[in-house]
Amino acid sequence: MSPSDPPFDDIAIVGLGLIGGSIALAVRERWPSVRVLGIDRQAVLAHALGGGAIDRGAEGVGAIGREQLVVLAAPVRQNVALLAELAPRLAAGTVVTDVGSTKRDIVASIPEGMAAAFVGGHPIGGAERGGFGFARPDLFRGRPWIFTPGPEAPRAALDRLFAFVTGLGSRPSLMDPAQHDRVMAALSHAPQLAATALMAVTGAAAGSAFLPLAGRGLVDTTRLASSPPDTWRDVCAVNADAIGDALDALIACLSELRAGLSDGETITRVFEEAAHWRAELMKGRE
Amino acid sequence: MSPSDPPFDDIAIVGLGLIGGSIALAVRERWPSVRVLGIDRQAVLAHALGGGAIDRGAEGVGAIGREQLVVLAAPVRQNVALLAELAPRLAAGTVVTDVGSTKRDIVASIPEGMAAAFVGGHPIGGAERGGFGFARPDLFRGRPWIFTPGPEAPRAALDRLFAFVTGLGSRPSLMDPAQHDRVMAALSHAPQLAATALMAVTGAAAGSAFLPLAGRGLVDTTRLASSPPDTWRDVCAVNADAIGDALDALIACLSELRAGLSDGETITRVFEEAAHWRAELMKGRE
Repeated sequence: MSPSDPPFDDIAIVGLGLIGGSIALAVRERWPSVRVLGIDRQAVLAHALGGGAIDRGAEGVGAIGREQLVVLAAPVRQNVALLAELAPRLAAGTVVTDVGSTKRDIVASIPEGMAAAFVGGHPIGGAERGGFGFARPDLFRGRPWIFTPGPEAPRAALDRLFAFVTGLGSRPSLMDPAQHDRVMAALSHAPQLAATALMAVTGAAAGSAFLPLAGRGLVDTTRLASSPPDTWRDVCAVNADAIGDALDALIACLSELRAGLSDGETITRVFEEAAHWRAELMKGRE
Repeated sequence: MSPSDPPFDDIAIVGLGLIGGSIALAVRERWPSVRVLGIDRQAVLAHALGGGAIDRGAEGVGAIGREQLVVLAAPVRQNVALLAELAPRLAAGTVVTDVGSTKRDIVASIPEGMAAAFVGGHPIGGAERGGFGFARPDLFRGRPWIFTPGPEAPRAALDRLFAFVTGLGSRPSLMDPAQHDRVMAALSHAPQLAATALMAVTGAAAGSAFLPLAGRGLVDTTRLASSPPDTWRDVCAVNADAIGDALDALIACLSELRAGLSDGETITRVFEEAAHWRAELMKGRE
C-alpha cells in the first residue's frame, strides 16, 4: 500500500450527523475512489446524496455487506446496540470503529466470537451545532483522534485506522478506555454541562428583554449550549460516574467563589489558577 | 454644535487599561482635535504616548485641571475613591462618568455639593485580555453603553455623553443602577466566575499532559478565564449580593444535572431550555 492508497476501499458510515457526515466529506476529498455507504433517515440521506457525500444510502444496517470499514456514528448507546446487531453478520477482516465520546461502554460490549475486528475511537472535533448540515471535510484537520483498542484488537486493524484518520488530517493516539472516559469527563462532558446550565439560568434570569445587553463573554462561554440533547443524554448516562466527579469539583469551586465574593484572597487565587491553566490550554493553539 | 463637532474639547481618562485605552484610541479616530490627558503608571503612559493615544500623561489626578469630561476607568472601588478625591476640585460644567461594571456603588457615593455633574456609565465591550496592549478604537462599535443617571444628573450632561459615545460607535441606553447590577450579575459577572471556575478545575483535573486533547468547546467556554483578578476582585465585592443570587441559580442547575445524569428527562429538559435561550441570545448577532 503506497501512502496515497486508501486503507479501506469501501466504507459504511452509520449515522450522518456532524461527525459521520464530516468523515464522509473528508473521505471524498482525500480518496475520491472510495465507495461510501451512508445509513440514516431518508431526509438526511437525500441531503448527503445530493451533496455527493455518499454513493449509496440506506435506512437500516441490513444494507451493510462486505464493506472493509464500518464506522458507528450514532449516539453512544445506539452504537453499542448496533455493534451487537452487526457482529454476527460481518466477515473476518472487516474493521469496525465508533466515534462516540465515551469508550468504556462500547469496549466492554464487544460481542464474544465476533469475526470482525473492533477498535473504539474518538475524534476530537466539535462545532457549534450537530447534524449533517454542519458537517465539513476539514473538521478533523490537525485535531486529535483517540483510539482505545482492547488486547484482542489486531495490530493490522489499528494500523489501518491510524492510516485512515491520518489521511483525514487528524493526529491519532492511543489511550486506555477508563482513562479516556475520565479525561473526557473533565475536558469535554463537564464543560458542556457547565455551558448548558449557564445558558439556561442566565436566559431565565435576564429574559429576552435584557439578553441583547450581553457582551461577547457570555456569547463565547455558552457557545456549546445549542448542542443536541440526544447525543448528550447518552453520554451523561454512560459516563455518569466520571462526569459526576467532574461536576462535583466544579460545584465545589463555584461554592468557594460564592462564599468568598467579598474576600479578595479567594477571588485572586482562583483567577490566578484559572489564568495559569488557560495559558496551558492555549499552548500550541492559534 | 453640528453632529461632527466633538461634545467635549478636552478629556481626561483615569486608567488606560482595555476600556480607558480604547476610549482614547476611539476619540483620536473620531475627533482628532480633542485633547486627551491620560492618568496611569509611567510604563502605561509611555506606551500610550508612543502610540499617539494621548496628548499628555500624568501619574496622579492632580494633573486634571479644566477638562470638560473626566472618565474614571480604574477598577470599580478605585473609581469611587477617585470621585471623592476629585469632587472638590472640579468646576461646574465639568462632566464626570465612569466605565465600571457595577453602578449602585458609585452612584450612591456621589459627593454632596459636587459642582461637576456625575453620570455613571458602563460600556459593554470586552475582549480576551485586559490592559492597554489590547485596547482598540473599535471596541465599542455597535455595542451597548448603559448610563445610570441619578435624579440630580443634569439633562445637558447626559445629552453630551450620549453624543460622545454615539460618536465612538456605541449605542447608549438608560437603566436604573440596581437593575443594572442585577442584570449584569446574570449576564456578565456570574458567567465570568463560571468560566474561571471551570478552567481552574479542568486544568487541575486534566493537567498539562491531557489539556492538548481538549476540543474547541473548552477553548471557547473558558475564553474569559484569563481576565485580570484585580478588576474582578472589586466587582465581586461590590456586587456580591446580586452575583451570589446568580451563582446560587447556577449551582442549583448544575446540582440538578449532576443528580439527573442517568435520567434522560432532566438532561433533555435543561438542554432544551439552554438551546432556546442560546437562540434568543444570538438574535441580531453575526
